Amino acid sequence: MELALKEAYRGIARGDGGPFGAVVVRGSEVIASGHNEVLKTNDPTRHAEMCAITRASKKMSSPHFSGCVIYSTTEPCVMCFAAINWAQIQQVFFGTTVRDVKRLGFNELVISNRRLNTLGGGSVALVAGFMRHECQELLDAWGRMPSHETY
Amino acid sequence: MELALKEAYRGIARGDGGPFGAVVVRGSEVIASGHNEVLKTNDPTRHAEMCAITRASKKMSSPHFSGCVIYSTTEPCVMCFAAINWAQIQQVFFGTTVRDVKRLGFNELVISNRRLNTLGGGSVALVAGFMRHECQELLDAWGRMPSHETY
Repeated sequence: MELALKEAYRGIARGDGGPFGAVVVRGSEVIASGHNEVLKTNDPTRHAEMCAITRASKKMSSPHFSGCVIYSTTEPCVMCFAAINWAQIQQVFFGTTVRDVKRLGFNELVISNRRLNTLGGGSVALVAGFMRHECQELLDAWGRMPSHETY
Repeated sequence: MELALKEAYRGIARGDGGPFGAVVVRGSEVIASGHNEVLKTNDPTRHAEMCAITRASKKMSSPHFSGCVIYSTTEPCVMCFAAINWAQIQQVFFGTTVRDVKRLGFNELVISNRRLNTLGGGSVALVAGFMRHECQELLDAWGRMPSHETY
């Protein structure tokens, strides 16, 4: 999660997009990391988790990322959670929640990862509130910046 | 939708991935098209809609695709529908449904677009069953192929 936070801070310093970072890990190996690049690319799919998954795919021999987990500074949005489920990533560790981010003005579908698992028949294990304090500090730091667009 | 079907047939002929195509349109202009490239890339995020959105983003001046609609041969999966919502695409036209595809063995979260709109507070207009017969023929054609992996 420290690496995910570092990615996110780097992304907001560059103006690449929102305050989000993610890292795909297998055992003790960091497979790939990413931060939100939506502003940089004008591509609404370029969330931190999606960037990390796309980068990780270059090291994989199948679209199923067996044995991998992902660390996300905020609970993955509906798009990212479904991508994690497609990738068969086993577990998500996240700090702040979809609701915390909705309050910042992001225009997202407000459905928790837990609910998506239940409704959709997913089986991704969830660890909520992981380093939540540090992840909240990241959102606060972004909120204090002069420009913060919520795409 | 004819172009989306053509994209999908091209994709399965090449072995790029599953039998899915999508086209982003604004007014009478085709902005971008895509087909499933999950097998080609080992990237589980490379669904037809995501490929089309990523390509479309290169022509956009913002991550919000004002005035655009999308044609998808099958109802967008949870990931793709959330991406469409992020892009503020106004309307989705689709042929076959998430349930039709689940029956083929794809490992997806089974939640309809209608339900995602209702639960998550989305506002994407839906036109289901658009050229459904032709879209079902595409799934049938893929089902008859000797190899059809369901990533």
